[in-house]
Amino acid sequence: MPVPAAIQFLAGRLKIEASFAVAANGHTDARLEAGIYRASRRLEGRTGFEFPRAPATDSQTAALLIQCNGPGSQVPSVKEDESYSLDVSEKQAVLKAATVVGALRGIETFLQLVEGDRQGYFIPSVKIQDKPRFPWRGLLIDAGRHFEPVEVIKRNLDGMAAVKLNVLHWHLTEDQGFRIESKRYPRLHQMGSDGLYYTQDQAREIVDYARDRGIRVMPEFDMPGHATSWLVGHPELGSAPGPYKIERKNGIFDPAFDPTREELYKFLEGFFTEIAQLFPDQYIHIGGDENEGHQWTTNTKIQAFMKAKGLKDNHALQAYFNQHVSKILQKLGKKMIGWDEILHPDLPKDTVIHSWRGPASLAEAAHKGYDGILSSGYYIDLMYPASQHYQVDPVASDGGLSEIELAHILGGEATMWGEWVSPETIDSRIWPRTAAIAERLWSPRNVTAIDDMYRRLEWVSLQLEELGLTHQKNVDMMLRRLTRTKEIGPLRILASVVEPVKVYARGRAHPATMLSPLTRLIDAATPDSRAAREFTALVDGLLTDAPRFRQNRDNIKTVLTQWRDVHPALDVLIDQSPVLREAEQLPHDLSDIGVAGLEALSYLAADTPPPAEWRAARLAMLEQASKPKAEVEFVIINPMRKLIILAAELPALKSIPVSQWRQRVLTVAGEKDR
Amino acid sequence: MPVPAAIQFLAGRLKIEASFAVAANGHTDARLEAGIYRASRRLEGRTGFEFPRAPATDSQTAALLIQCNGPGSQVPSVKEDESYSLDVSEKQAVLKAATVVGALRGIETFLQLVEGDRQGYFIPSVKIQDKPRFPWRGLLIDAGRHFEPVEVIKRNLDGMAAVKLNVLHWHLTEDQGFRIESKRYPRLHQMGSDGLYYTQDQAREIVDYARDRGIRVMPEFDMPGHATSWLVGHPELGSAPGPYKIERKNGIFDPAFDPTREELYKFLEGFFTEIAQLFPDQYIHIGGDENEGHQWTTNTKIQAFMKAKGLKDNHALQAYFNQHVSKILQKLGKKMIGWDEILHPDLPKDTVIHSWRGPASLAEAAHKGYDGILSSGYYIDLMYPASQHYQVDPVASDGGLSEIELAHILGGEATMWGEWVSPETIDSRIWPRTAAIAERLWSPRNVTAIDDMYRRLEWVSLQLEELGLTHQKNVDMMLRRLTRTKEIGPLRILASVVEPVKVYARGRAHPATMLSPLTRLIDAATPDSRAAREFTALVDGLLTDAPRFRQNRDNIKTVLTQWRDVHPALDVLIDQSPVLREAEQLPHDLSDIGVAGLEALSYLAADTPPPAEWRAARLAMLEQASKPKAEVEFVIINPMRKLIILAAELPALKSIPVSQWRQRVLTVAGEKDR
Repeated sequence: MPVPAAIQFLAGRLKIEASFAVAANGHTDARLEAGIYRASRRLEGRTGFEFPRAPATDSQTAALLIQCNGPGSQVPSVKEDESYSLDVSEKQAVLKAATVVGALRGIETFLQLVEGDRQGYFIPSVKIQDKPRFPWRGLLIDAGRHFEPVEVIKRNLDGMAAVKLNVLHWHLTEDQGFRIESKRYPRLHQMGSDGLYYTQDQAREIVDYARDRGIRVMPEFDMPGHATSWLVGHPELGSAPGPYKIERKNGIFDPAFDPTREELYKFLEGFFTEIAQLFPDQYIHIGGDENEGHQWTTNTKIQAFMKAKGLKDNHALQAYFNQHVSKILQKLGKKMIGWDEILHPDLPKDTVIHSWRGPASLAEAAHKGYDGILSSGYYIDLMYPASQHYQVDPVASDGGLSEIELAHILGGEATMWGEWVSPETIDSRIWPRTAAIAERLWSPRNVTAIDDMYRRLEWVSLQLEELGLTHQKNVDMMLRRLTRTKEIGPLRILASVVEPVKVYARGRAHPATMLSPLTRLIDAATPDSRAAREFTALVDGLLTDAPRFRQNRDNIKTVLTQWRDVHPALDVLIDQSPVLREAEQLPHDLSDIGVAGLEALSYLAADTPPPAEWRAARLAMLEQASKPKAEVEFVIINPMRKLIILAAELPALKSIPVSQWRQRVLTVAGEKDR
Repeated sequence: MPVPAAIQFLAGRLKIEASFAVAANGHTDARLEAGIYRASRRLEGRTGFEFPRAPATDSQTAALLIQCNGPGSQVPSVKEDESYSLDVSEKQAVLKAATVVGALRGIETFLQLVEGDRQGYFIPSVKIQDKPRFPWRGLLIDAGRHFEPVEVIKRNLDGMAAVKLNVLHWHLTEDQGFRIESKRYPRLHQMGSDGLYYTQDQAREIVDYARDRGIRVMPEFDMPGHATSWLVGHPELGSAPGPYKIERKNGIFDPAFDPTREELYKFLEGFFTEIAQLFPDQYIHIGGDENEGHQWTTNTKIQAFMKAKGLKDNHALQAYFNQHVSKILQKLGKKMIGWDEILHPDLPKDTVIHSWRGPASLAEAAHKGYDGILSSGYYIDLMYPASQHYQVDPVASDGGLSEIELAHILGGEATMWGEWVSPETIDSRIWPRTAAIAERLWSPRNVTAIDDMYRRLEWVSLQLEELGLTHQKNVDMMLRRLTRTKEIGPLRILASVVEPVKVYARGRAHPATMLSPLTRLIDAATPDSRAAREFTALVDGLLTDAPRFRQNRDNIKTVLTQWRDVHPALDVLIDQSPVLREAEQLPHDLSDIGVAGLEALSYLAADTPPPAEWRAARLAMLEQASKPKAEVEFVIINPMRKLIILAAELPALKSIPVSQWRQRVLTVAGEKDR
């Protein structure tokens, strides 16, 4: 994962043994050697073997032979050739690539292919020709709203490399925090960050670390809105007199730069000159989103300026601002990128449009000759399942774009907006779902089977742990803190079938700021519940698979019995942990769900229809249970609804083939599949 | 934990609510404020509350009032006053301390006291007067054999502070690695470390981080032996011509400094001058252990020198060396400390003896007027249970030391030798057992109840996780990597009743080097098995607790049934994971143990004696099962043996009171309690 552009499995296998060695007989350099070193250590960790450390001298006997043609670009670029081929025979794996980055991509594929059985570790014989569908495959990490320390960024860069993502979009400034040291304007980070910022040395360290993994680091400095934290130390840049203080809430705020002041552009030129040296990437992101211009509208000086310049509205004023910034960046040899809002005919054609609106706005930009990348549909902070992101393609299928227009669509980025993530939880919000987005951006358009995606996602998720990512292990840790005991079994059962509320619902029922602890049940809960997926599959099995009907029924019974019976143990845990009090209704809801499900199963087993009022009562109960509590929600409501309707409709269903049951039940339930 | 010097629980409780605030109305400074900040965030994490961030202005209404008299010493010192008092009433907790470090110790006590129930979070009313029994309470981290990155050191410093340890003994050089940057002699770290070393900036960062938590950082540079890594870049310092290369094996090696050369002392003076500036602590540890002098014996020049100087053996030559080093350190204003071997009448009286031999050698040093600290009995790398370390006291009870001699015994240090620890596993080797050693060194001598220690240890172990320590969460992660699946339940059962082989047995059956991956079952297994402790308690219950006989029997049956039945699932996991192949006998041993135990239970239930050969056969099976496999060993053998003997002896036992069964069974088994 991502699935290669072309792959052909053959008979046979290459054994992985203690003598495993890698030889590089083409171009080699420190970056490639470091990549081989890291891969070898990971493979040692999995297999328990200690491999020879000396470089393989004999390219004939090395298990992995790498033939790399050249270093590629000095600084990772959007034009980098990332293609590679991998031929695994019983004798040897041969990895060929034009660049070191291509070789690094191939090494990750190699590592993913390792399997084991009674005969030992091996890689199946395979022929792979691979290259990315899109050249821009990114992950945005918002360190503005919640700061994320260097080690968090590093382990996520490792995760990105493992799934062949190649852009870290580092969102460094927000109303809630200014996160990068400026030696030229130290009041920016000193007064705008609560002391939580990256030093320039750390920024360089991250850039080097990313480069080593073939990943670009593109910084974002959101402007002219989202700018509160700039104004704390430099109120003179703002459109209202201030004073300003760091924003603690979540939302869209008024503070914005005053685009009418020449001093602003001097300041920004100074700032970007400093920044341009720190970040070698060709692009600088200027945000540009969600500026509602309230400060502009209420500032008479700005209004007079707009009139004088013939700027008819705030959008025009922002375009005026963008043009100035664009010129500064051009002078520094950088290309500008910004969110949808910046699109304006006066901008140079090498500006890139970053779409949070959707593939259509991307197509529009392409039509106008602008490059674009997509993030709409890849907002992983919204807590949707991977399957949903996976179905979003940067190129709308009905787009009817020309070849030239298509080439303008560079790719996309998953966006880890930082309102509700801490260093403890961010990994579980990014992974493993982002691997599915990475596949969408790398693999051929027609790789779309969701079940197969999940099968591979589970596999990759395990491998991501070896990079130090905490998406799995921190869940139990957080449950232990919540329960103040090691005996978290009952809470784990509950947590496995709830998910955080979706979209922007968080913080409504339980007001919170950027300083609130992110250690509640909602933080321990993860999106894309596997248990719910499995339960859904079991119920779907009942609806489609006559031969396994009994077995599916028995499996469902086991699950439902657990749900029904877990509440007394949970009550005990909640009684000793006031932080869990907000969730005290959930065990009883889960118990009701279990009871209703077991009743449905007995009706199915007994072949007798339930009384008419049973169905209405149970569906009403489900409706109640489906309401969020403690800002989490059950994600087993849909399959439960199907189960109840199945039990109620069974006499009617018997007249049609089992293969049609599912459709009928869905129709009766008035829903589509989730 | 550690238990305070004096504690008195009173009626009532102080509520912990969202309005929680800390006021400091005595001395305050950045260090105290940072300590309050960290504690507040931890408490927020546990309770889910967002506390007000502004410092409490009203010392009457603050939940915690800190009255600190002064800053204490600039650099943490062995003479630091760490005492504090904590008075918690229903209105307020008042913490008084002479120094900031004392206040930090009291804050940790405060955090440990937080409980929760149906009424919310609270601290019970309590009066505490507390101070440490010993002024030197350390943890040695050996970063020489395996390098441990900065973040590992930092999170362990946090753990140390949580249990009131106050010395990080940083073992920085070993045959296997030279881990600190030397700007004066860069070949030391460049050639002796595989690139794995702390920069001087990082060392300063660690020193500051420790100071912030009231912890001294004492560096160790082991010499004249354990010196291979120095000699890789500087063979001219060695007693044999070289060349040298970094040692990869585990053991005692010959390379040693040549004490006859004047250039050596010039070099060391240059080196220590650089180091003394980096580490402000008053002490520098020079190791001095395990130098067998083979290189000296075979070097004719050295032999001639010894003859000329009248040095009659290698010990005398080492003393000659130590005196020279001692003078260098004296000139730099540092005190020297070294292992037992350095004790010699010519050394200045402010030299400190670090004992790996035992309390008797410490008493001997004290008698001669030397300060000393104990590590014998606190070797946590040996994989003994916490209970064993807990029973070791730095002052031998039969020591008969005078008051003055007693004052020479400064304390002790847990030693985390680094042969078999990686950044992934080191926390689980240090924690939670080191908390028991911390208690031995802080709390009154008569605090010795083991069951109570374990009860508190479990509690502290959970709280240590909030500091980022991975001792619990990495276990499951490693099991997932071993099994290549999330479904680790069966392996978790097995892993819970085995422990790594003890003392220095590791590496014999399965030869390994410092480059071998530490990702096998032995690495996922942890010392001091809780499951084994619980099983032992259940069996002991059978042997001592007549009223609960049936209930204990039923509980034991549940456990044994699980052991008996887990092997098919384990076989499947092992078949798909060759790295687990070495452990393939263990599930069958565990199954045999389960079967034998269940047989014993049926004999007990049926009140019929087993056939004579049954006992012999089952004990022989246990004997087989007790042999280490895959370098782990079952730690349920002793209680199983008791259970079998109980079943076999039941007819005879019936003639005596239940309270005497246990003793009788132990006598029959020919053993003492573990």
